[in-house]
Amino acid sequence: MGADDGRRVTITAIAREAGVSVPTVSRVLNGRSDVAPDTRERVEELLRHHGYRRRSSRSVRRAGLVDLVFNDLDSPWAVEIIRGVEDVGHGAGVGTVVSAIHRQPTAARQWLQNLRTRATDGVIFVTSHLSPPLHAQLRRLNVPVVVVDPAGVPAMDVPTIGATNWSGGLAATEHLLSIGHRRIGFVAGPTHLLCSRARLDGYRAGLEAAGIPIDDKLIYPGDFYHASGFSGGTALLDLADPPTGIFAASDQMAFGVYEAIRRRGLRVPDDVSVVGFDDLPEARWASPPLTTVRQPLVEMGRLAARTVLRLSQGEGIDSPRVELATELVVRDSTAAPPTGSPASS
Amino acid sequence: MGADDGRRVTITAIAREAGVSVPTVSRVLNGRSDVAPDTRERVEELLRHHGYRRRSSRSVRRAGLVDLVFNDLDSPWAVEIIRGVEDVGHGAGVGTVVSAIHRQPTAARQWLQNLRTRATDGVIFVTSHLSPPLHAQLRRLNVPVVVVDPAGVPAMDVPTIGATNWSGGLAATEHLLSIGHRRIGFVAGPTHLLCSRARLDGYRAGLEAAGIPIDDKLIYPGDFYHASGFSGGTALLDLADPPTGIFAASDQMAFGVYEAIRRRGLRVPDDVSVVGFDDLPEARWASPPLTTVRQPLVEMGRLAARTVLRLSQGEGIDSPRVELATELVVRDSTAAPPTGSPASS
Repeated sequence: MGADDGRRVTITAIAREAGVSVPTVSRVLNGRSDVAPDTRERVEELLRHHGYRRRSSRSVRRAGLVDLVFNDLDSPWAVEIIRGVEDVGHGAGVGTVVSAIHRQPTAARQWLQNLRTRATDGVIFVTSHLSPPLHAQLRRLNVPVVVVDPAGVPAMDVPTIGATNWSGGLAATEHLLSIGHRRIGFVAGPTHLLCSRARLDGYRAGLEAAGIPIDDKLIYPGDFYHASGFSGGTALLDLADPPTGIFAASDQMAFGVYEAIRRRGLRVPDDVSVVGFDDLPEARWASPPLTTVRQPLVEMGRLAARTVLRLSQGEGIDSPRVELATELVVRDSTAAPPTGSPASS
Repeated sequence: MGADDGRRVTITAIAREAGVSVPTVSRVLNGRSDVAPDTRERVEELLRHHGYRRRSSRSVRRAGLVDLVFNDLDSPWAVEIIRGVEDVGHGAGVGTVVSAIHRQPTAARQWLQNLRTRATDGVIFVTSHLSPPLHAQLRRLNVPVVVVDPAGVPAMDVPTIGATNWSGGLAATEHLLSIGHRRIGFVAGPTHLLCSRARLDGYRAGLEAAGIPIDDKLIYPGDFYHASGFSGGTALLDLADPPTGIFAASDQMAFGVYEAIRRRGLRVPDDVSVVGFDDLPEARWASPPLTTVRQPLVEMGRLAARTVLRLSQGEGIDSPRVELATELVVRDSTAAPPTGSPASS
């Protein structure tokens, strides 16, 4: 073991520098909870700074666990990512610990506290925003971290796995154009998320390439959830010159658009075509089955698990940010615009 | 510690009886994998038979983990149960390890093997069928086991948490009767599952109480999945005297019935009313939103976690089988039968 040379820092040196006793440093190393938070922080910072490794690190048993952390488990795509991570973990003999921190600092602290009392080989966050304090605490734990980020916010210096949102937005728009739609509405995601902007830009690029001017009245600001798809669909159908096709930036909003169309006494796709984004299992079960842009969520989970396991074994990774390809899946919610509509002329 | 008396069996005695060395018994106790399977089985059986407990069992650190095991993570209600278990685990400072064993003995063995190399405070299975060999191996691990069983098969001697399927079937049928339906179709679940039979019996009981004879042509054998809901709905609408309301024994089948109705050029609920069973999140997003029987899946997960944690602390439980109440949730997929239909006369 080459790194195990004379320059290795000892626990005694760490204890001296931190101004604490050797047993205190041991308690920190063993994840015991009977250490004052300030002391723990100081000792962990020194251990990290000096690159301390236990003498027996090669023979220390792996924890056999990877932590998969969501903000909330109510997200419809959570189970897809769990499937991907669990699949790789199962094959590697590693258990997948699933947690939700509910966007609450107290819940995150509790989770970190639990993590200190047991071991983990690495942490996968599914989030668009890793808070700086949480990130700092994870660094001190000296555990590999990977972010799965369907929303596409650039993370700090953490390996991140996302999907090609711009290309997906373009593909959805090109599909509607190719079957004859000229007036296409868009129900957008939250504007503060990069993925929303990328999908919107893909939509705009598709229209511009077809020589269709952007009409801001056709762009409704949604938030990815069902209710905003319903109000967006309603608002678009209320326009003096309504669209014949609507692209919603999430499947859940697309289902809301379905409901707006149904309440109007109209039909999908006979009167209005609808395209979603995600390809949740529900997209197949919708009536009619939803044409949508597939995010490879299971594959994103698989790649995250493989990446965190590689990092836990001290191996390097190829790229700090990987985007997996999205793909248009054509089902029954899109058709040519109705004859007689202004758009079909 | 009262049980820790002179009659305690020792490792030496176990080793003698098993015909192996003391270190071999230690290896079995420590979950090491370098023990022949036959030997491990014999030693574990003797440890269990003699009620062996480690001397330090009171001071042994809790694993801080509960295992939650699914057959498959593609089930739409998996994430609901995960939410419930995670919620209780989080509060108790216990991590939730999620696994899928894919109904394959090899995957189950791999999972057990992983479990031996780390600790767990208890195992929650979500299944209708705990295979006898798996059950036997879990007994030898001496870990508390609880089954969450939405399907309602009576488990072996394992605490089980289910839902009131018969009452749910009755409530769905009574709802359709109360708004004027007399000819009510039923798309059933797999007949080998008790929960399917309970829901069917609830449907029959509702009709009988209303003085409506059972018509077997109105009962279609489904399998809980979407495709069978679609074929069931199609078959029922093809009848010379089709139903005005259809009760599907799962939400996924209800969505299939929606699609059968749409393909026929008919509308929900104007032409045909539909009731589901489960109340998945998707039921709210369906168009129209689905009237359904709610299974309290999150609560079932919560109760399972609380039960397994109690057992892991050596506490008793109140009842080996608990059924939580189902509840009818009325949304927009049910209305009075169309005037002029034979059923509305």
